[in-house]
Amino acid sequence: TSLTNGGLNLHSTVKRKLDGEKDYVFDKRLRYSVRQNESNCRFRDIVVRKEDGFTHILLSSQTSDNNALTPEIMKEVRRALCNASADDSKLLLLSAVGSVFCSGLDYSYLIGRLSNDRRKESTRIAEAIRDFVKAFIQFKKPIVVAINGPALGLGASILPLCDIVWASEKAWFQTPYATIRLTPAGCSSYTFPQILGVALANEMLFCGRKLTAQEACSRGLVSQVFWPTTFSQEVMLRVKEMASCSAVVLEESKCLVRSFLKSGLEDVNEKECQMLKQLWSSSKGLDSLFSYLQDKIYEV
Amino acid sequence: TSLTNGGLNLHSTVKRKLDGEKDYVFDKRLRYSVRQNESNCRFRDIVVRKEDGFTHILLSSQTSDNNALTPEIMKEVRRALCNASADDSKLLLLSAVGSVFCSGLDYSYLIGRLSNDRRKESTRIAEAIRDFVKAFIQFKKPIVVAINGPALGLGASILPLCDIVWASEKAWFQTPYATIRLTPAGCSSYTFPQILGVALANEMLFCGRKLTAQEACSRGLVSQVFWPTTFSQEVMLRVKEMASCSAVVLEESKCLVRSFLKSGLEDVNEKECQMLKQLWSSSKGLDSLFSYLQDKIYEV
Amino acid sequence: TSLTNGGLNLHSTVKRKLDGEKDYVFDKRLRYSVRQNESNCRFRDIVVRKEDGFTHILLSSQTSDNNALTPEIMKEVRRALCNASADDSKLLLLSAVGSVFCSGLDYSYLIGRLSNDRRKESTRIAEAIRDFVKAFIQFKKPIVVAINGPALGLGASILPLCDIVWASEKAWFQTPYATIRLTPAGCSSYTFPQILGVALANEMLFCGRKLTAQEACSRGLVSQVFWPTTFSQEVMLRVKEMASCSAVVLEESKCLVRSFLKSGLEDVNEKECQMLKQLWSSSKGLDSLFSYLQDKIYEV
Repeated sequence: TSLTNGGLNLHSTVKRKLDGEKDYVFDKRLRYSVRQNESNCRFRDIVVRKEDGFTHILLSSQTSDNNALTPEIMKEVRRALCNASADDSKLLLLSAVGSVFCSGLDYSYLIGRLSNDRRKESTRIAEAIRDFVKAFIQFKKPIVVAINGPALGLGASILPLCDIVWASEKAWFQTPYATIRLTPAGCSSYTFPQILGVALANEMLFCGRKLTAQEACSRGLVSQVFWPTTFSQEVMLRVKEMASCSAVVLEESKCLVRSFLKSGLEDVNEKECQMLKQLWSSSKGLDSLFSYLQDKIYEV
Repeated sequence: TSLTNGGLNLHSTVKRKLDGEKDYVFDKRLRYSVRQNESNCRFRDIVVRKEDGFTHILLSSQTSDNNALTPEIMKEVRRALCNASADDSKLLLLSAVGSVFCSGLDYSYLIGRLSNDRRKESTRIAEAIRDFVKAFIQFKKPIVVAINGPALGLGASILPLCDIVWASEKAWFQTPYATIRLTPAGCSSYTFPQILGVALANEMLFCGRKLTAQEACSRGLVSQVFWPTTFSQEVMLRVKEMASCSAVVLEESKCLVRSFLKSGLEDVNEKECQMLKQLWSSSKGLDSLFSYLQDKIYEV
Repeated sequence: TSLTNGGLNLHSTVKRKLDGEKDYVFDKRLRYSVRQNESNCRFRDIVVRKEDGFTHILLSSQTSDNNALTPEIMKEVRRALCNASADDSKLLLLSAVGSVFCSGLDYSYLIGRLSNDRRKESTRIAEAIRDFVKAFIQFKKPIVVAINGPALGLGASILPLCDIVWASEKAWFQTPYATIRLTPAGCSSYTFPQILGVALANEMLFCGRKLTAQEACSRGLVSQVFWPTTFSQEVMLRVKEMASCSAVVLEESKCLVRSFLKSGLEDVNEKECQMLKQLWSSSKGLDSLFSYLQDKIYEV
C-alpha cells in the first residue's frame, strides 16, 4: 500500500512500459496490412477498418507519444465516428495500436499552445475536447472498446460513454486530474461517481488513484478482463457475434439504455469544458499547471 | 474464459439443470402442504401462502416449463400482489418451486401466438409484460425475493424492482435480450446500468453474459448468497425477523428508498414495452426473432 | 453465515471493542497535544486542528459514549464546518479520537428527551439532524473522512456526503434503522441504493446487515482500506499531498462532481427528517421504538 498518486511518475512509467513491449506483434502486423488499404489513408493518427458488420477504429498516433490526444487527433476520431454512424456497420470497435491505449491529453502540446496564446488556445482546445466527447455521447450504435494497455486521463474518462469495455490484464486506468492541476473532463465528474461510487471516483479524480484491470472490472468500469496473449482474438470473436445481431435491436437497445443519460451527459460535458477553459485562460490556473508539468519534465 | 454468450445453449442448460435436481425435497413438500390449503386453490401457476406477518408467493407453473412466464401467469402474480398489498401482511416473499427460479418469457408461447396474429398478440403480450412490471414498481411493502436457481430474461430483470434479493449458490442470472433478437424489458435498460455499471450491464443485455450468484452479489444485483442446503431456512429466519418490525417503518422506509425512482421506472417500463410491441408487430423484427428461435429448437 | 442482524447486540459489541482497545496510543497523544492549544478550547465534544492547508475535525465526545451524536454535538460539528468553509484551508479531514468512529444518534438521549416532551423534542432533534446533514451536503471543499473503527447509523449514513473515505481494517459499517424501529437518515435512503445497489442497501437499512471494511470498500462505500497500525500516517500523507493541490481545482472539481446531486440530496434530507419527526411524535411510533430499546437495555 505505497502512495499511489500516479500523477508523479506518469510519463516515465508509460515510457518504460512502451520500451518493454515494443515487439507487440499482433497490432504491428495489423497496422501494416491496414496501411496497404488505400481507403484508410485519409487518416493520419488513427486507422479505420471497415469489417463485416462493424467499423474498427484504432488509435495509432503518428504526431504524439503514447496515443496522446491533440485537437487534430480528436478531430480525426470524430470524423471516423461520423462516417461509422452513417454507413451500414452495426457497431463500432475502438482499440489502439501499440502498448498504450491512450495517455489522455497531450500535455506538451497543451503547454506549447497555451504559452503562445492563452486566450485563443484555451478556447480552441476546450472546444476540441467538448466536441470529441460529444461525438461519443451522441453515437447511436453500440461502441465496444478494447483496452490493451494504460488508459489515462481523457483516455479513461470516455470509457463510460462507450457501451462495452473489454480490457487486457495489462490495462490500467488513471485520471489524476487534480494532481496535474486540472478539473475532470470526458464526463468523468458524473460517470465515475455513478459507476464507481463517490468514494473511489473522488480518490481517482483528486488523488490520482490507479486502478488495475481487475479492480476496474470488479468496480464496474470494465466489463471483463482477458489474458493479454489472446486478448485480440477474444474481442474479435465477441464483436463478430454481436455484429450478427439485428441492427435494429442493437441500436434500439442502446437507445433505451442511454436515453435517460444523454441530455445529462451533454450538460456535464459543457460544464467540464467551460471549467477547463476558465482554468487555462486565468494566469493563476495556468501558472499552477505549468509549474506542475515543468517539475515533472525536470524529474523525468 | 470461454465464450459465454449464453443465449446459445440457454434452454438445454436449464433443462439439464432441472433433470439433475428433480429431488429438491424442501419445496416439493412445501407445495404439497400448500396445495392442501383451500384458500390457495384460486391460483393455477403460483402458490400463495399467508404467513404470520408476510405473504409468500411461489412461482410454480403448471402451464409452462421452468417457471416461464405467459400473460396468464403474469396476471396471476399481479392478482396475488394486489391481494398482498391490501391485506395485513407487512412484506412479501417471492420464491419458486423446483430448481429454476424463472426462465423469463415463454418463447414457445410467444412464437405460437405471434405466428397466429402478429398485430393483436404483440399488443396483448407487450401489455401483459407492462402491467406485470408495473405491479412490482408500484408495490408499497418490501419485497424479498429468494432465488433458488437460474433467473433468466424477465425473471432476472425484475430483481432490481424487488427490495432484498437473497440467492442460493446455485442461482445464476442472464438476460440475453439482443442474442434472442429482443430489446430489454422489466426496466433492465435502466436498473442494470444503474446497479452493475454500464459496461457489465451492456455485456449482459447485448452479449448474454451470464453471472454466477457470487458475481451477481459482488456487483450489487444480489444482497447475499447462501448455501443451497440451508437456503430456505436462512431466508425464512430473516424474513420472519423483518416481519417483526413495525409495518409503518417498513413501508415508509421503502417509500423513501423508492420515491426517487418510481416515476422514472414507470416511464422506462412504458418505453421498453412499446419497443417490444413495435418489434413484434414488424415483419422484419419477427422474422429475425423466429429464425433465431427456430435455429435453437433444431439445435436442441 | 450466521444471522447478522447486528441491531441486536449493537451496544455490547461496541463496548467490548472499546474496552479491548483503550490504549490506542496515537490518538490519545494527539488529543493531549491538541487540548493544550487554546484556540481549540471552544469545542467540548470535538477537537479542531488547523493544519497546513487543511482543517482537521476529530470527534471526541465528552458528553456521550462511543462518539454518539446529540443535537449539541451535531451543532459543534456544524460550527466547525462553517469555520472551515470560511478560512483558508483547502480541504477538511474528519476523524475520531478513540476506537469508535461514531455510533450514530445517542439513543439514551433520544429516549430521555422524547419521554419528556414528545412533541417539542421530536421537532428539535429531527431539525438538529436535518441541519447537521445539510452542513455536509453544502460544504464546498473536499471532505476526507478517516474511519478508525465502527461507524453506525448516522455515523455511517453521512459517509457518501463526504468525498473520500479511508478506513482502517478495524472499521465496520451498520445502519440498522428498521431493526431499531427508525426510518433512514443522513440521505442513506438515496445514497446507499445509489452506491451499493438497491439489494445490499436495503439489506443494510431493513435487516441491519453489517459490512466489514473490505466489504464496504469492494462495494463502493469506502475508497481504500489500510492496516490499523499505519492508518493515521497513511491518511496524513495523502491528505497533505491533496492539500498541495490548487484550492480552485479542488473546489471546482468537487463542485462538478456534486452539482448534479446537491438539490436532490437536500430534498431527501428534508423528507427523511420529516418522517422521523412524524414517527417520534406519534405515540405508536414512539412505543415501538421504546419497547425495542428497553429490551436492549435489559439484555445488556
